[in-house]
Amino acid sequence: MARSKGRLVIVGGGEDRKGDKVVLARFVELAGGKAARVVVLTTASQVAAEKPEEAQAIEDLYDQAFRDLGAKKVTTLHIHDRAQAGEEAAVQAVMEATGVFMTGGAQERLASIIGGTPLDKAMHDAYREHGAVIGGTSAGASAISQIMVLGGPSDRVPIKGSLPLAPGLGYVGDVIIDQHFSERQRLARLMSVIALNPAIVGIGVDEDTALVITPGRCIEVVGSGTVTVVDGSEMAYTNFNEVGEGEVLALTDVRVHMLPAGFAYDLGRAAKDDGPRKRASAVFGGLVERMLATC
Amino acid sequence: MARSKGRLVIVGGGEDRKGDKVVLARFVELAGGKAARVVVLTTASQVAAEKPEEAQAIEDLYDQAFRDLGAKKVTTLHIHDRAQAGEEAAVQAVMEATGVFMTGGAQERLASIIGGTPLDKAMHDAYREHGAVIGGTSAGASAISQIMVLGGPSDRVPIKGSLPLAPGLGYVGDVIIDQHFSERQRLARLMSVIALNPAIVGIGVDEDTALVITPGRCIEVVGSGTVTVVDGSEMAYTNFNEVGEGEVLALTDVRVHMLPAGFAYDLGRAAKDDGPRKRASAVFGGLVERMLATC
Repeated sequence: MARSKGRLVIVGGGEDRKGDKVVLARFVELAGGKAARVVVLTTASQVAAEKPEEAQAIEDLYDQAFRDLGAKKVTTLHIHDRAQAGEEAAVQAVMEATGVFMTGGAQERLASIIGGTPLDKAMHDAYREHGAVIGGTSAGASAISQIMVLGGPSDRVPIKGSLPLAPGLGYVGDVIIDQHFSERQRLARLMSVIALNPAIVGIGVDEDTALVITPGRCIEVVGSGTVTVVDGSEMAYTNFNEVGEGEVLALTDVRVHMLPAGFAYDLGRAAKDDGPRKRASAVFGGLVERMLATC
Repeated sequence: MARSKGRLVIVGGGEDRKGDKVVLARFVELAGGKAARVVVLTTASQVAAEKPEEAQAIEDLYDQAFRDLGAKKVTTLHIHDRAQAGEEAAVQAVMEATGVFMTGGAQERLASIIGGTPLDKAMHDAYREHGAVIGGTSAGASAISQIMVLGGPSDRVPIKGSLPLAPGLGYVGDVIIDQHFSERQRLARLMSVIALNPAIVGIGVDEDTALVITPGRCIEVVGSGTVTVVDGSEMAYTNFNEVGEGEVLALTDVRVHMLPAGFAYDLGRAAKDDGPRKRASAVFGGLVERMLATC
Protein backbone atom coordinates (compact mmCIF):
# COMPACT_ATOMS: atom_id res chain seq x y z
CA MET A 1 0.00 0.00 0.00
CA ALA A 2 1.53 3.27 -1.13
CA ARG A 3 2.00 5.82 1.59
CA SER A 4 -0.52 8.63 1.54
CA LYS A 5 0.74 12.09 0.71
CA GLY A 6 -1.91 13.76 2.84
CA ARG A 7 -2.05 14.82 6.44
CA LEU A 8 -4.73 14.35 9.10
CA VAL A 9 -5.90 17.05 11.51
CA ILE A 10 -7.95 15.40 14.25
CA VAL A 11 -9.68 18.05 16.38
CA GLY A 12 -11.40 17.33 19.71
CA GLY A 13 -14.27 19.76 19.11
CA GLY A 14 -14.77 23.30 20.36
CA GLU A 15 -11.81 24.72 18.43
CA ASP A 16 -11.45 28.48 18.55
CA ARG A 17 -13.09 29.88 15.40
CA LYS A 18 -13.01 33.60 16.13
CA GLY A 19 -9.87 34.44 18.10
CA ASP A 20 -6.35 33.21 17.43
CA LYS A 21 -7.79 30.09 15.80
CA VAL A 22 -4.57 28.17 16.45
CA VAL A 23 -5.97 24.79 15.44
CA LEU A 24 -7.70 25.97 12.27
CA ALA A 25 -4.60 28.03 11.41
CA ARG A 26 -2.49 24.87 11.41
CA PHE A 27 -5.07 23.20 9.15
CA VAL A 28 -4.88 26.06 6.65
CA GLU A 29 -1.10 26.14 6.83
CA LEU A 30 -0.88 22.42 6.06
CA ALA A 31 -3.40 22.89 3.24
CA GLY A 32 -1.14 25.41 1.53
CA GLY A 33 -1.66 28.67 3.40
CA LYS A 34 -2.54 31.41 0.94
CA ALA A 35 -2.91 28.77 -1.78
CA ALA A 36 -5.31 26.66 0.32
CA ARG A 37 -8.53 25.53 -1.29
CA VAL A 38 -10.71 24.35 1.60
CA VAL A 39 -13.90 22.32 1.42
CA VAL A 40 -16.08 22.38 4.55
CA LEU A 41 -18.38 19.37 4.89
CA THR A 42 -21.39 19.79 7.20
CA THR A 43 -22.71 16.25 6.77
CA ALA A 44 -22.36 15.31 10.45
CA SER A 45 -24.84 18.00 11.48
CA GLN A 46 -28.49 16.96 11.62
CA VAL A 47 -29.37 20.58 12.28
CA ALA A 48 -27.62 21.69 9.08
CA ALA A 49 -29.64 19.03 7.24
CA GLU A 50 -32.98 20.16 8.60
CA LYS A 51 -32.75 23.92 9.06
CA PRO A 52 -31.44 26.08 6.21
CA GLU A 53 -30.72 28.98 8.58
CA GLU A 54 -28.60 26.75 10.84
CA ALA A 55 -26.74 25.37 7.82
CA GLN A 56 -26.01 28.93 6.78
CA ALA A 57 -24.78 29.84 10.27
CA ILE A 58 -22.29 26.95 10.26
CA GLU A 59 -21.22 27.87 6.72
CA ASP A 60 -20.69 31.52 7.66
CA LEU A 61 -18.70 30.61 10.78
CA TYR A 62 -16.15 28.38 9.07
CA ASP A 63 -16.11 30.35 5.82
CA GLN A 64 -15.18 33.47 7.76
CA ALA A 65 -12.61 31.61 9.89
CA PHE A 66 -10.81 30.00 6.95
CA ARG A 67 -10.86 33.23 4.92
CA ASP A 68 -9.52 35.20 7.88
CA LEU A 69 -6.70 32.67 7.98
CA GLY A 70 -5.84 33.46 4.38
CA ALA A 71 -7.27 30.50 2.51
CA LYS A 72 -7.59 31.25 -1.20
CA LYS A 73 -10.90 29.48 -1.66
CA VAL A 74 -13.51 28.13 0.76
CA THR A 75 -16.40 25.98 -0.44
CA THR A 76 -19.04 24.63 1.92
CA LEU A 77 -20.80 21.42 0.94
CA HIS A 78 -24.11 20.75 2.66
CA ILE A 79 -24.37 17.09 1.78
CA HIS A 80 -27.08 15.31 3.70
CA ASP A 81 -28.06 12.32 1.57
CA ARG A 82 -26.21 9.79 -0.54
CA ALA A 83 -27.55 11.20 -3.82
CA GLN A 84 -25.91 14.56 -3.05
CA ALA A 85 -22.70 12.69 -2.26
CA GLY A 86 -22.63 11.49 -5.86
CA GLU A 87 -23.14 14.89 -7.51
CA GLU A 88 -20.40 15.93 -9.87
CA ALA A 89 -19.98 19.49 -8.53
CA ALA A 90 -19.32 18.24 -5.00
CA VAL A 91 -16.90 15.56 -6.20
CA GLN A 92 -15.11 18.14 -8.32
CA ALA A 93 -14.77 20.56 -5.39
CA VAL A 94 -13.16 17.84 -3.28
CA MET A 95 -10.85 16.73 -6.10
CA GLU A 96 -9.57 20.29 -6.35
CA ALA A 97 -9.32 20.83 -2.60
CA THR A 98 -6.06 20.98 -0.70
CA GLY A 99 -8.00 20.48 2.55
CA VAL A 100 -11.36 18.98 3.53
CA PHE A 101 -12.74 19.84 6.97
CA MET A 102 -15.61 17.89 8.51
CA THR A 103 -17.69 19.76 11.09
CA GLY A 104 -19.22 18.21 14.21
CA GLY A 105 -22.51 16.50 14.88
CA ALA A 106 -22.99 12.73 14.67
CA GLN A 107 -20.25 10.56 13.19
CA GLU A 108 -22.73 7.94 11.99
CA ARG A 109 -24.15 10.53 9.60
CA LEU A 110 -20.73 10.89 7.96
CA ALA A 111 -20.33 7.13 7.64
CA SER A 112 -23.85 6.40 6.44
CA ILE A 113 -24.19 9.36 4.06
CA ILE A 114 -20.65 9.64 2.64
CA GLY A 115 -19.33 6.09 3.07
CA GLY A 116 -18.71 4.38 -0.28
CA THR A 117 -19.97 7.29 -2.39
CA PRO A 118 -18.06 9.07 -5.18
CA LEU A 119 -17.46 11.89 -2.66
CA ASP A 120 -15.86 9.42 -0.23
CA LYS A 121 -13.64 8.12 -3.01
CA ALA A 122 -12.73 11.66 -4.05
CA MET A 123 -11.73 12.52 -0.49
CA HIS A 124 -9.50 9.45 -0.27
CA ASP A 125 -7.98 10.22 -3.66
CA ALA A 126 -7.36 13.84 -2.69
CA TYR A 127 -5.77 12.66 0.53
CA ARG A 128 -3.70 9.85 -0.90
CA GLU A 129 -2.76 11.14 -4.34
CA HIS A 130 -2.89 14.94 -4.10
CA GLY A 131 -1.65 15.34 -0.55
CA ALA A 132 -4.82 17.00 0.69
CA VAL A 133 -5.33 17.54 4.41
CA ILE A 134 -8.30 15.72 5.92
CA GLY A 135 -9.53 17.42 9.03
CA GLY A 136 -12.46 16.90 11.33
CA THR A 137 -13.71 18.24 14.61
CA SER A 138 -15.70 16.34 17.24
CA ALA A 139 -17.82 13.83 15.26
CA GLY A 140 -15.74 14.76 12.22
CA ALA A 141 -12.64 13.65 14.12
CA SER A 142 -14.06 10.33 15.30
CA ALA A 143 -15.09 9.47 11.74
CA ILE A 144 -11.48 9.69 10.51
CA SER A 145 -10.47 6.24 11.80
CA GLN A 146 -11.27 2.80 10.36
CA ILE A 147 -13.21 1.87 13.48
CA MET A 148 -15.01 4.68 15.21
CA VAL A 149 -16.96 5.18 18.39
CA LEU A 150 -20.62 6.04 18.01
CA GLY A 151 -22.31 8.36 20.44
CA GLY A 152 -22.45 6.77 23.86
CA PRO A 153 -22.71 7.86 27.44
CA SER A 154 -19.63 9.31 29.13
CA ASP A 155 -19.83 6.95 32.08
CA ARG A 156 -17.49 7.68 34.94
CA VAL A 157 -16.62 3.98 35.09
CA PRO A 158 -15.68 1.67 32.19
CA ILE A 159 -18.81 -0.32 31.34
CA LYS A 160 -18.70 -3.45 29.18
CA GLY A 161 -20.48 -2.80 25.89
CA SER A 162 -21.29 0.81 26.71
CA LEU A 163 -19.59 2.33 23.71
CA PRO A 164 -20.93 1.09 20.37
CA LEU A 165 -18.43 0.92 17.51
CA ALA A 166 -18.91 1.21 13.78
CA PRO A 167 -16.82 1.36 10.62
CA GLY A 168 -15.53 4.90 10.05
CA LEU A 169 -14.13 6.66 6.98
CA GLY A 170 -10.88 4.74 7.25
CA TYR A 171 -8.01 7.24 7.13
CA VAL A 172 -6.18 5.69 10.07
CA GLY A 173 -6.22 2.13 11.34
CA ASP A 174 -5.78 0.46 14.72
CA VAL A 175 -6.93 3.51 16.66
CA ILE A 176 -10.13 4.75 18.24
CA ILE A 177 -10.54 8.52 18.38
CA ASP A 178 -12.59 10.09 21.14
CA GLN A 179 -13.18 13.84 21.40
CA HIS A 180 -14.14 16.47 24.01
CA PHE A 181 -11.91 14.14 25.97
CA SER A 182 -10.91 15.87 29.18
CA GLU A 183 -13.94 18.13 29.17
CA ARG A 184 -16.42 15.23 29.16
CA GLN A 185 -14.24 12.89 31.24
CA ARG A 186 -14.09 10.13 28.65
CA LEU A 187 -11.11 8.12 29.86
CA ALA A 188 -13.39 5.46 31.33
CA ARG A 189 -15.38 4.95 28.14
CA LEU A 190 -12.22 4.76 26.07
CA MET A 191 -10.91 2.15 28.51
CA SER A 192 -14.00 0.05 27.78
CA VAL A 193 -12.82 -0.22 24.15
CA ILE A 194 -9.24 -0.98 25.21
CA ALA A 195 -10.52 -3.85 27.37
CA LEU A 196 -12.41 -5.22 24.37
CA ASN A 197 -9.31 -5.26 22.19
CA PRO A 198 -6.01 -3.99 23.61
CA ALA A 199 -4.50 -3.96 20.13
CA ILE A 200 -6.46 -0.77 19.48
CA VAL A 201 -4.75 2.47 20.51
CA GLY A 202 -7.12 4.91 22.18
CA ILE A 203 -6.69 8.57 21.26
CA GLY A 204 -8.50 11.17 23.34
CA VAL A 205 -8.38 14.68 21.95
CA ASP A 206 -9.32 17.66 24.10
CA GLU A 207 -11.39 20.58 22.88
CA ASP A 208 -9.54 23.29 20.95
CA THR A 209 -6.76 20.76 20.40
CA ALA A 210 -5.64 18.74 17.39
CA LEU A 211 -3.54 15.69 16.75
CA VAL A 212 -1.82 16.23 13.40
CA ILE A 213 -0.58 13.08 11.68
CA THR A 214 1.75 13.07 8.71
CA PRO A 215 1.64 9.39 7.79
CA GLY A 216 4.93 7.57 8.04
CA ARG A 217 6.69 10.60 9.35
CA CYS A 218 5.41 12.82 12.13
CA ILE A 219 2.81 13.44 14.77
CA GLU A 220 2.30 16.73 16.54
CA VAL A 221 -0.15 18.27 18.97
CA VAL A 222 -1.60 21.76 18.40
CA GLY A 223 -3.95 23.86 20.53
CA SER A 224 -4.76 24.55 24.14
CA GLY A 225 -5.40 21.08 25.58
CA THR A 226 -3.73 17.70 25.48
CA VAL A 227 -3.95 14.52 23.48
CA THR A 228 -4.21 11.45 25.70
CA VAL A 229 -2.92 8.25 24.13
CA VAL A 230 -4.08 5.02 25.76
CA ASP A 231 -2.06 1.91 24.93
CA GLY A 232 -3.44 -1.39 26.17
CA SER A 233 -0.84 -3.59 24.50
CA GLU A 234 0.71 -4.41 27.86
CA MET A 235 -2.59 -4.65 29.73
CA ALA A 236 -1.93 -7.40 32.24
CA TYR A 237 -5.44 -8.03 33.47
CA THR A 238 -9.05 -7.31 32.66
CA ASN A 239 -12.23 -8.93 33.93
CA PHE A 240 -13.75 -8.45 30.47
CA ASN A 241 -14.54 -12.13 29.99
CA GLU A 242 -15.87 -12.58 33.49
CA VAL A 243 -18.52 -9.85 33.55
CA GLY A 244 -21.69 -9.34 31.54
CA GLU A 245 -22.83 -6.49 29.32
CA GLY A 246 -23.45 -3.36 31.36
CA GLU A 247 -21.16 -4.44 34.17
CA VAL A 248 -18.14 -2.47 35.32
CA LEU A 249 -14.77 -3.37 33.84
CA ALA A 250 -11.43 -3.62 35.61
CA LEU A 251 -8.18 -2.99 33.72
CA THR A 252 -4.62 -2.98 34.95
CA ASP A 253 -1.33 -1.88 33.43
CA VAL A 254 -2.67 0.33 30.70
CA ARG A 255 -0.07 2.78 29.44
CA VAL A 256 -1.17 6.39 29.20
CA HIS A 257 0.63 9.27 27.50
CA MET A 258 -0.44 12.90 27.92
CA LEU A 259 0.84 14.99 25.05
CA PRO A 260 0.33 18.77 25.19
CA ALA A 261 0.56 21.34 22.42
CA GLY A 262 4.06 21.60 21.04
CA PHE A 263 4.66 17.92 21.39
CA ALA A 264 5.99 16.58 18.10
CA TYR A 265 7.72 13.42 17.08
CA ASP A 266 9.36 13.40 13.68
CA LEU A 267 10.36 9.93 12.56
CA GLY A 268 12.15 11.25 9.50
CA ARG A 269 14.35 13.65 11.44
CA ALA A 270 14.99 11.08 14.17
CA ALA A 271 16.09 8.54 11.56
CA LYS A 272 19.01 10.76 10.54
CA ASP A 273 20.60 10.29 13.92
CA ASP A 274 20.69 6.76 15.20
CA GLY A 275 21.23 7.72 18.85
CA PRO A 276 18.22 9.97 19.41
CA ARG A 277 16.09 7.78 17.21
CA LYS A 278 16.82 4.77 19.34
CA ARG A 279 16.02 6.77 22.46
CA ALA A 280 12.79 8.09 20.99
CA SER A 281 11.86 4.58 19.98
CA ALA A 282 12.38 3.37 23.50
CA VAL A 283 10.43 6.30 24.91
CA PHE A 284 7.33 5.62 22.92
CA GLY A 285 7.65 1.86 22.82
CA GLY A 286 6.95 1.75 19.12
CA LEU A 287 3.59 3.39 19.65
CA VAL A 288 4.15 6.45 17.54
CA GLU A 289 5.68 4.36 14.76
CA ARG A 290 2.61 2.12 14.87
CA MET A 291 0.29 5.11 14.61
CA LEU A 292 2.27 6.58 11.74
CA ALA A 293 2.43 3.27 9.93
CA THR A 294 -1.30 2.66 9.87
CA CYS A 295 -2.46 5.79 8.04
CA MET B 1 8.16 -0.54 62.31
CA ALA B 2 5.38 -2.80 63.60
CA ARG B 3 2.54 -3.33 61.19
CA SER B 4 -0.62 -1.41 62.02
CA LYS B 5 -3.65 -3.41 63.09
CA GLY B 6 -6.05 -0.84 61.67
CA ARG B 7 -7.68 -0.43 58.33
CA LEU B 8 -8.11 2.62 56.09
CA VAL B 9 -11.31 3.57 54.27
CA ILE B 10 -10.50 6.24 51.70
CA VAL B 11 -13.70 7.70 50.24
CA GLY B 12 -13.83 9.94 47.16
CA GLY B 13 -16.57 12.20 48.54
CA GLY B 14 -20.30 12.20 47.88
CA GLU B 15 -20.89 8.80 49.48
CA ASP B 16 -24.48 7.74 49.84
CA ARG B 17 -25.63 8.68 53.36
CA LYS B 18 -29.34 7.99 53.14
CA GLY B 19 -29.96 5.04 50.82
CA ASP B 20 -28.07 1.73 50.76
CA LYS B 21 -25.00 3.53 52.16
CA VAL B 22 -22.70 0.83 50.73
CA VAL B 23 -19.50 2.71 51.48
CA LEU B 24 -20.42 3.75 55.03
CA ALA B 25 -21.75 0.23 55.66
CA ARG B 26 -18.33 -1.22 54.88
CA PHE B 27 -16.78 1.30 57.28
CA VAL B 28 -19.14 0.25 60.09
CA GLU B 29 -18.61 -3.44 59.32
CA LEU B 30 -14.82 -3.05 59.53
CA ALA B 31 -15.24 -1.06 62.76
CA GLY B 32 -17.03 -3.97 64.39
CA GLY B 33 -20.60 -3.81 63.10
CA LYS B 34 -23.00 -3.81 66.02
CA ALA B 35 -20.06 -3.32 68.38
CA ALA B 36 -18.75 -0.31 66.44
CA ARG B 37 -17.92 2.84 68.36
CA VAL B 38 -17.62 5.56 65.74
CA VAL B 39 -16.14 9.02 66.14
CA VAL B 40 -17.06 11.55 63.45
CA LEU B 41 -14.57 14.39 63.06
CA THR B 42 -15.84 17.56 61.34
CA THR B 43 -12.56 19.46 61.49
CA ALA B 44 -12.19 19.77 57.71
CA SER B 45 -15.37 21.81 57.46
CA GLN B 46 -14.99 25.58 57.75
CA VAL B 47 -18.77 25.84 57.78
CA ALA B 48 -19.02 23.51 60.77
CA ALA B 49 -16.48 25.74 62.51
CA GLU B 50 -18.35 28.94 61.87
CA LYS B 51 -22.03 28.08 61.91
CA PRO B 52 -23.47 26.01 64.76
CA GLU B 53 -26.54 25.10 62.72
CA GLU B 54 -24.39 23.74 59.89
CA ALA B 55 -22.26 21.79 62.35
CA GLN B 56 -25.44 20.28 63.74
CA ALA B 57 -26.67 19.38 60.25
CA ILE B 58 -23.45 17.50 59.47
CA GLU B 59 -23.60 15.81 62.88
CA ASP B 60 -27.21 14.75 62.37
CA LEU B 61 -26.51 13.40 58.88
CA TYR B 62 -23.63 11.11 59.86
CA ASP B 63 -25.02 10.26 63.29
CA GLN B 64 -28.23 9.02 61.65
CA ALA B 65 -26.33 7.16 58.91
CA PHE B 66 -23.99 5.32 61.28
CA ARG B 67 -26.80 4.48 63.72
CA ASP B 68 -28.97 3.21 60.84
CA LEU B 69 -26.06 0.95 59.97
CA GLY B 70 -26.09 -0.52 63.44
CA ALA B 71 -23.16 1.19 65.12
CA LYS B 72 -23.34 0.85 68.90
CA LYS B 73 -22.09 4.34 69.64
CA VAL B 74 -21.61 7.46 67.51
CA THR B 75 -19.80 10.52 68.85
CA THR B 76 -19.30 13.66 66.79
CA LEU B 77 -16.30 15.84 67.59
CA HIS B 78 -16.50 19.42 66.36
CA ILE B 79 -12.82 20.25 66.73
CA HIS B 80 -11.86 23.49 65.07
CA ASP B 81 -8.77 24.70 66.90
CA ARG B 82 -5.65 23.11 68.33
CA ALA B 83 -6.71 23.68 71.91
CA GLN B 84 -9.83 21.58 71.36
CA ALA B 85 -7.60 18.89 69.83
CA GLY B 86 -5.87 18.57 73.18
CA GLU B 87 -8.97 18.22 75.33
CA GLU B 88 -9.16 15.05 77.35
CA ALA B 89 -12.76 14.15 76.47
CA ALA B 90 -12.00 14.21 72.74
CA VAL B 91 -8.81 12.20 73.15
CA GLN B 92 -10.68 9.68 75.29
CA ALA B 93 -13.45 9.29 72.72
CA VAL B 94 -10.89 8.53 70.01
CA MET B 95 -8.96 6.10 72.25
CA GLU B 96 -12.17 4.13 72.76
CA ALA B 97 -13.28 4.30 69.13
CA THR B 98 -13.19 1.36 66.75
CA GLY B 99 -13.56 3.78 63.84
CA VAL B 100 -12.80 7.47 63.20
CA PHE B 101 -14.43 9.10 60.19
CA MET B 102 -13.25 12.46 58.87
CA THR B 103 -15.83 14.47 56.93
CA GLY B 104 -15.09 16.66 53.92
CA GLY B 105 -14.06 20.29 53.57
CA ALA B 106 -10.45 21.43 53.32
CA GLN B 107 -7.65 18.97 54.03
CA GLU B 108 -5.31 21.73 55.23
CA ARG B 109 -7.68 22.31 58.15
CA LEU B 110 -7.20 18.70 59.26
CA ALA B 111 -3.42 18.97 59.00
CA SER B 112 -3.10 22.36 60.64
CA ILE B 113 -5.65 21.82 63.42
CA ILE B 114 -5.10 18.13 64.28
CA GLY B 115 -1.50 17.57 63.18
CA GLY B 116 0.81 16.84 66.12
CA THR B 117 -1.88 17.25 68.79
CA PRO B 118 -2.86 14.68 71.44
CA LEU B 119 -5.91 13.91 69.27
CA ASP B 120 -3.64 13.13 66.30
CA LYS B 121 -1.55 10.85 68.48
CA ALA B 122 -4.68 9.16 69.85
CA MET B 123 -5.92 8.50 66.32
CA HIS B 124 -2.60 6.94 65.34
CA ASP B 125 -2.54 4.85 68.51
CA ALA B 126 -6.12 3.71 67.97
CA TYR B 127 -5.23 2.80 64.37
CA ARG B 128 -1.92 1.13 65.06
CA GLU B 129 -2.46 -0.49 68.45
CA HIS B 130 -6.21 -1.05 68.76
CA GLY B 131 -6.98 -1.85 65.16
CA ALA B 132 -9.33 1.09 64.67
CA VAL B 133 -10.54 1.98 61.20
CA ILE B 134 -9.51 5.40 59.94
CA GLY B 135 -11.88 6.72 57.31
CA GLY B 136 -12.23 9.96 55.47
CA THR B 137 -14.26 11.36 52.65
CA SER B 138 -13.17 14.00 50.14
CA ALA B 139 -10.77 16.27 52.08
CA GLY B 140 -10.84 13.67 54.84
CA ALA B 141 -9.55 11.11 52.33
CA SER B 142 -6.75 13.27 50.96
CA ALA B 143 -5.50 13.98 54.49
CA ILE B 144 -4.90 10.25 55.13
CA SER B 145 -1.60 10.09 53.24
CA GLN B 146 1.84 11.32 54.31
CA ILE B 147 1.93 13.79 51.45
CA MET B 148 -1.39 15.26 50.43
CA VAL B 149 -2.71 17.48 47.69
CA LEU B 150 -4.09 20.81 48.76
CA GLY B 151 -7.03 22.30 46.95
CA GLY B 152 -6.07 23.23 43.43
CA PRO B 153 -7.75 23.76 40.11
CA SER B 154 -8.90 20.70 38.17
CA ASP B 155 -7.11 21.73 35.00
CA ARG B 156 -7.89 19.68 31.94
CA VAL B 157 -4.18 19.56 31.15
CA PRO B 158 -1.30 18.69 33.51
CA ILE B 159 0.25 22.01 34.58
CA LYS B 160 3.65 22.21 36.25
CA GLY B 161 3.24 23.37 39.84
CA SER B 162 -0.55 23.61 39.65
CA LEU B 163 -1.23 21.26 42.52
CA PRO B 164 0.29 22.36 45.83
CA LEU B 165 1.35 19.59 48.20
CA ALA B 166 1.58 19.49 51.97
CA PRO B 167 2.28 17.02 54.75
CA GLY B 168 -0.85 15.03 55.58
CA LEU B 169 -1.83 12.93 58.59
CA GLY B 170 0.53 10.16 57.52
CA TYR B 171 -1.41 6.89 57.54
CA VAL B 172 -0.08 5.79 54.17
CA GLY B 173 3.18 6.66 52.45
CA ASP B 174 4.32 6.99 48.87
CA VAL B 175 0.86 7.80 47.55
CA ILE B 176 -1.15 10.89 46.69
CA ILE B 177 -4.90 10.61 47.12
CA ASP B 178 -7.22 12.67 44.96
CA GLN B 179 -11.00 12.56 45.32
CA HIS B 180 -14.15 13.36 43.27
CA PHE B 181 -11.82 11.87 40.69
CA SER B 182 -13.86 10.99 37.61
CA GLU B 183 -16.54 13.53 38.44
CA ARG B 184 -14.13 16.49 38.44
CA GLN B 185 -11.82 15.09 35.76
CA ARG B 186 -8.71 15.11 37.88
CA LEU B 187 -6.45 12.74 35.95
CA ALA B 188 -4.48 15.64 34.52
CA ARG B 189 -3.80 17.27 37.87
CA LEU B 190 -2.75 13.95 39.38
CA MET B 191 -0.39 13.50 36.42
CA SER B 192 1.27 16.80 37.36
CA VAL B 193 2.31 15.22 40.67
CA ILE B 194 3.47 12.02 38.97
CA ALA B 195 5.70 14.09 36.68
CA LEU B 196 7.20 15.80 39.74
CA ASN B 197 8.11 12.49 41.36
CA PRO B 198 7.19 9.25 39.62
CA ALA B 199 7.97 7.30 42.80
CA ILE B 200 4.64 8.51 44.16
CA VAL B 201 1.62 6.39 43.31
CA GLY B 202 -1.42 8.44 42.37
CA ILE B 203 -4.76 7.23 43.69
CA GLY B 204 -7.92 8.76 42.30
CA VAL B 205 -11.11 7.80 44.13
CA ASP B 206 -14.52 8.44 42.58
CA GLU B 207 -17.49 9.75 44.50
CA ASP B 208 -19.51 7.18 46.48
CA THR B 209 -16.51 4.87 46.22
CA ALA B 210 -13.87 3.78 48.70
CA LEU B 211 -10.45 2.22 48.59
CA VAL B 212 -10.15 0.01 51.66
CA ILE B 213 -6.61 -0.84 52.73
CA THR B 214 -5.71 -3.49 55.25
CA PRO B 215 -2.00 -2.81 55.69
CA GLY B 216 0.26 -5.63 54.65
CA ARG B 217 -2.60 -7.74 53.50
CA CYS B 218 -5.41 -6.55 51.28
CA ILE B 219 -6.89 -3.78 49.21
CA GLU B 220 -10.46 -3.68 47.99
CA VAL B 221 -12.76 -1.27 46.21
CA VAL B 222 -16.28 -0.59 47.48
CA GLY B 223 -19.06 1.58 46.07
CA SER B 224 -20.47 2.71 42.75
CA GLY B 225 -17.42 4.18 40.97
CA THR B 226 -13.85 3.18 40.33
CA VAL B 227 -10.47 3.74 41.89
CA THR B 228 -7.87 4.86 39.35
CA VAL B 229 -4.29 3.99 40.25
CA VAL B 230 -1.59 5.94 38.41
CA ASP B 231 1.90 4.45 38.48
CA GLY B 232 4.68 6.56 37.05
CA SER B 233 7.52 4.23 37.97
CA GLU B 234 8.06 3.32 34.33
CA MET B 235 7.46 6.82 33.00
CA ALA B 236 9.82 7.04 30.07
CA TYR B 237 9.65 10.74 29.34
CA THR B 238 8.48 14.00 30.80
CA ASN B 239 9.30 17.57 29.84
CA PHE B 240 9.15 18.52 33.54
CA ASN B 241 12.68 19.91 33.64
CA GLU B 242 12.32 21.75 30.37
CA VAL B 243 9.21 23.81 31.09
CA GLY B 244 8.51 26.54 33.62
CA GLU B 245 5.90 26.82 36.35
CA GLY B 246 2.42 27.09 34.89
CA GLU B 247 3.40 25.42 31.64
CA VAL B 248 1.81 22.28 30.29
CA LEU B 249 3.48 18.97 31.08
CA ALA B 250 4.01 16.00 28.80
CA LEU B 251 4.24 12.48 30.21
CA THR B 252 4.63 9.17 28.45
CA ASP B 253 4.37 5.55 29.56
CA VAL B 254 2.42 6.10 32.74
CA ARG B 255 0.67 2.93 33.90
CA VAL B 256 -2.99 3.30 34.78
CA HIS B 257 -5.22 0.79 36.53
CA MET B 258 -9.00 1.20 36.78
CA LEU B 259 -10.37 -0.81 39.66
CA PRO B 260 -14.14 -1.01 40.12
CA ALA B 261 -16.18 -2.08 43.14
CA GLY B 262 -15.63 -5.73 43.98
CA PHE B 263 -12.00 -5.57 43.03
CA ALA B 264 -9.95 -7.04 45.85
CA TYR B 265 -6.42 -8.27 46.15
CA ASP B 266 -5.59 -10.31 49.21
CA LEU B 267 -1.88 -10.77 49.68
CA GLY B 268 -2.39 -13.18 52.56
CA ARG B 269 -4.62 -15.51 50.61
CA ALA B 270 -2.46 -15.26 47.51
CA ALA B 271 0.61 -16.16 49.53
CA LYS B 272 -0.83 -19.57 50.33
CA ASP B 273 -0.60 -20.56 46.71
CA ASP B 274 2.61 -19.74 44.98
CA GLY B 275 1.18 -19.99 41.46
CA PRO B 276 -1.61 -17.41 41.71
CA ARG B 277 0.51 -15.23 43.93
CA LYS B 278 3.19 -15.05 41.31
CA ARG B 279 0.59 -14.27 38.68
CA ALA B 280 -0.99 -11.57 40.82
CA SER B 281 2.43 -10.14 41.44
CA ALA B 282 3.09 -9.94 37.74
CA VAL B 283 -0.31 -8.41 37.10
CA PHE B 284 0.18 -5.55 39.47
CA GLY B 285 3.88 -5.15 38.98
CA GLY B 286 4.47 -5.00 42.69
CA LEU B 287 2.24 -1.97 42.96
CA VAL B 288 -0.30 -3.40 45.37
CA GLU B 289 2.43 -4.87 47.55
CA ARG B 290 4.08 -1.46 47.61
CA MET B 291 0.84 0.20 48.66
CA LEU B 292 0.19 -2.38 51.34
CA ALA B 293 3.74 -2.15 52.63
CA THR B 294 3.72 1.60 53.18
CA CYS B 295 0.78 1.89 55.57
